Amino acid sequence: MNIIDIITKKRLKEELSYEELSYAFNSYLEGLVKDYQMSSLLMAIVINGMSDTETFNLTDIFLKSGDRLDLSSIKGTKIDKHSTGGIGDKITLIIGPIVASLGVIVPKMSGRGLDYTGGTIDKLESIKGFKTSLTEAEFIRELKDIGFAITSQTSNLCPMDKYIYALRDVTGTTESIPLIATSIMSKKIAGGADKILIDIKCGEGALIKTKEDANKLKTIMERIGAYYQKETICEITDMNTPLGTNIGNALEVMEAMDVLNGKQGKLTDLSIELASQMVSIGLNINLEEAKNKVLENINNKKALNKFLEFVKYQGGDISSLKVSSYKEEVKSKKSGIVKSIKALNIGKLSCSLGAGRLNKEDMIDYSVGIVLNKTIGDKVNINDTLFTMYKKDDTKVLIDIDDYYEII
Amino acid sequence: MNIIDIITKKRLKEELSYEELSYAFNSYLEGLVKDYQMSSLLMAIVINGMSDTETFNLTDIFLKSGDRLDLSSIKGTKIDKHSTGGIGDKITLIIGPIVASLGVIVPKMSGRGLDYTGGTIDKLESIKGFKTSLTEAEFIRELKDIGFAITSQTSNLCPMDKYIYALRDVTGTTESIPLIATSIMSKKIAGGADKILIDIKCGEGALIKTKEDANKLKTIMERIGAYYQKETICEITDMNTPLGTNIGNALEVMEAMDVLNGKQGKLTDLSIELASQMVSIGLNINLEEAKNKVLENINNKKALNKFLEFVKYQGGDISSLKVSSYKEEVKSKKSGIVKSIKALNIGKLSCSLGAGRLNKEDMIDYSVGIVLNKTIGDKVNINDTLFTMYKKDDTKVLIDIDDYYEII
Repeated sequence: MNIIDIITKKRLKEELSYEELSYAFNSYLEGLVKDYQMSSLLMAIVINGMSDTETFNLTDIFLKSGDRLDLSSIKGTKIDKHSTGGIGDKITLIIGPIVASLGVIVPKMSGRGLDYTGGTIDKLESIKGFKTSLTEAEFIRELKDIGFAITSQTSNLCPMDKYIYALRDVTGTTESIPLIATSIMSKKIAGGADKILIDIKCGEGALIKTKEDANKLKTIMERIGAYYQKETICEITDMNTPLGTNIGNALEVMEAMDVLNGKQGKLTDLSIELASQMVSIGLNINLEEAKNKVLENINNKKALNKFLEFVKYQGGDISSLKVSSYKEEVKSKKSGIVKSIKALNIGKLSCSLGAGRLNKEDMIDYSVGIVLNKTIGDKVNINDTLFTMYKKDDTKVLIDIDDYYEII
Repeated sequence: MNIIDIITKKRLKEELSYEELSYAFNSYLEGLVKDYQMSSLLMAIVINGMSDTETFNLTDIFLKSGDRLDLSSIKGTKIDKHSTGGIGDKITLIIGPIVASLGVIVPKMSGRGLDYTGGTIDKLESIKGFKTSLTEAEFIRELKDIGFAITSQTSNLCPMDKYIYALRDVTGTTESIPLIATSIMSKKIAGGADKILIDIKCGEGALIKTKEDANKLKTIMERIGAYYQKETICEITDMNTPLGTNIGNALEVMEAMDVLNGKQGKLTDLSIELASQMVSIGLNINLEEAKNKVLENINNKKALNKFLEFVKYQGGDISSLKVSSYKEEVKSKKSGIVKSIKALNIGKLSCSLGAGRLNKEDMIDYSVGIVLNKTIGDKVNINDTLFTMYKKDDTKVLIDIDDYYEII
C-alpha cells in the first residue's frame, strides 16, 4: 500500500477501504505520511466526499488512536453535550448546571476557540483562578461530587483528531460533513459518556451553512452514536443571529449567569429546550416533565447555585469577572426595524477587538467583546445605540454599521 | 489576501484572479505558504480544474519566477521538442540529430525520469563521459557549432516549476491538464526556442490516458504558445504499447542508433513523422518535401553521424554503451497472436529491474532493461520468447506473463 495510490483513489472519487484509511491516517500519526500528503488527501475528501462506511471506519480509526475515558465508576446517567460552535454560544455554561442540578451527570471536555467562535475553555479562563486542565482523577472526582465538570481535552483521547484538526484548520479543509462527524463523534465516544446531545449550529455564523448539510451531519452522527451504543440526539439550531446579547469571554460568562438568574429571551428559550432534552434522556422521563423540572430549577436558583458550586470547585473566583471600561457605542444612522444581525461579522469584530485568536499563538483579552443593545424585531430610531464595543483601549474602531445590522 | 481564502475559493470551484494565483504560488516560493497548504490548493485545482484564463495566468507566473534563455545570437530557426513521456520513448535521440542534420537548430532541455517513463538525461548518462549539465554558454556554443544540444534543466529557468513539480509528484496531483500545460509551456517558453513541437503521449502507458484529455491539452498548449508568439504544434501519439522494442537506458540509446541506421517499424514511422513536422516548420517547406529530406538524411547516414558528433561533442564515448549479461527470456505459455502489450506494466517491470527510480534518491543501473522480442500482431508459438529481461544479477524474477502480453 502507498499513500499516492490512496490519494489518487480518493481523487478519482472511489471509496477507500478500512485498511487504506487506516494506513493513510496511522502512517501520518507515525510521521511516515507527510503533512503535504495528508492535506492533499483531506482536500480530495472535502471535495469528493466520503461514504457512510468510510465515515464509520475513519471514526473508528480516530477512536483507536488513543484511550477511552472510563466513567463507569460514576453513578447515574452521564450525558455529554457538544455544540458545533457559533457566535455567542455560551449554552454549555447554562445547561450544564441546570441538568446537573437535576441529578444527571454532565462530563464535558471542551476546546479553545480557534475560529471566530470562542471556546468554552477560553470563556472560563476569564474567571480568575479557574483551573481548566484537570487530571482524569480530578475530573471523575468532581463529577462524583457535584455532577458537572469541564476540562480541556486530554492528550490521550483521539490524538489523531488533534493533529488532523490542526492541519485542516490551516489548509482550507474544515468544511466537510464526514470529517466534522468523524472529529466530533470520535472525541465524544472516547469521552466515555452514556449518551450524547449535539447542538448543530446552522447558518451564516456557523461552520454548517445550510439546513441540508445540517441534516446530513445529524443523520451520520446519530448513526455513528448508535453503532457505539451511545444514544445520540442532534438538535439543529439557528446560527444566523448571534446567540444572546453578549459576545466575548467575561461577557458571555456574565450572560450565562443572567440566564440562570431568570433573564428572558431566545437564548433562554433555546437553553431550556436543550436542557430539557438532556434531562428527558438522562432521567428517562418525557420532554414536558423534563421541561417543568428545568424551569423549576431555574426559578428556585438551584441551577445558578450549581454553576457557582462548579466555578468554586475548579478554583475560580466569580467576583473577579470584569469587563473593560473602554466602551464605544455604535449608533444607528436611520430609523426602522432590525431585520437581521450578521453573526459572522459580529464574531469577526469581537475577535479583532481581542476576544478571540486569529493565530494559534494569539493572547486573548478576556475583558473585551460586544453587547448587542438591539435585537431582531426591535424598533430603532436614528442615533439609538445598536451595540456596544468593550475595547482594549480608547482607540476609535472604524466600522460600517451596515456590515453588522440590517435595518428596514 | 490569505492562502486559506484562496484555497477555499478553489475548493468551491471559483475562478482565481491573477493576483490570487500570484500570491499563492510566489508566497510558496518564498516559504510563506507551506507545502501542506500548496498541496491542498493543488488537489483542489486537480479536481475542480482551472479556466483557460487561470492557466494562462499561472503559466505567466511560472515563467516570471526565473530567467528566460536568450538564443537570439544563434542563426536559423530554433525548435524545441518535448514529449509528455511514455514507456520506451527515445524519440528525442532520433529526431534531434535528423532535424539538426537538415539545418534546423534543436535546443533541448531535458529532465530525469521520476515516473516509470525514463528521462532523456538518464538515457544519455548510460554513455560513459557524457556531460548532461552544460552552462548556458556551452549550450549556445554547441548549438552554433553542430545545431543540436541536450542539457539538464538549469536552475534559473522556471524554478517555480521545479518545486511545484516535485510536490505534485509526491501528493497525487500530477494528473491535471491545466497543471501539465502550465509546467510544460512555462519551461518551453523560458527555453528560448522560436517554435515548439510537443508530442502528447496518450494511452495506458502515459500520464494522459484519454484522447479527450489529450485534445484539451493540445488546445490549451497551442493557445499559450500563440500568446507568447511561439508557434506550437502538438501531435497526439499512441502510448498504449511501448515505443519500439527496447526499454531501459543503454538499451534505448542503442535502439535510437538502430533507427538512425535504417531499422524499420512503428518507432521509425513515428520518428519520421515528427521529424518531418519539425523540418517543415523549421525550413518553411511543406510536409512532403520535409519528409523526403528526412528520409534522405537517414539513408545517407547524415543523421546518424550528427548523433555521433553530438555524443562526442558532449564528451561521450559511444563504444562504452553496455548491456547487462544477466539475461532472462520470458516464454509464451500459449500460441496465438499478440493482441496487446501492456505499456505501463512493462515500464514498471523495467523500473523494478533498476532502469528507473521509485524514489528521488534511487541509483539507476544503465545496463538493465527489457527487449520486446514479439510485437503487436506477431504470431506466437508455445515457448517462443516474448521478451527478454536484462537484469542486475542472476536472481530469478517472478512474473505473470498475462500482466504484460495479451495473446489471443
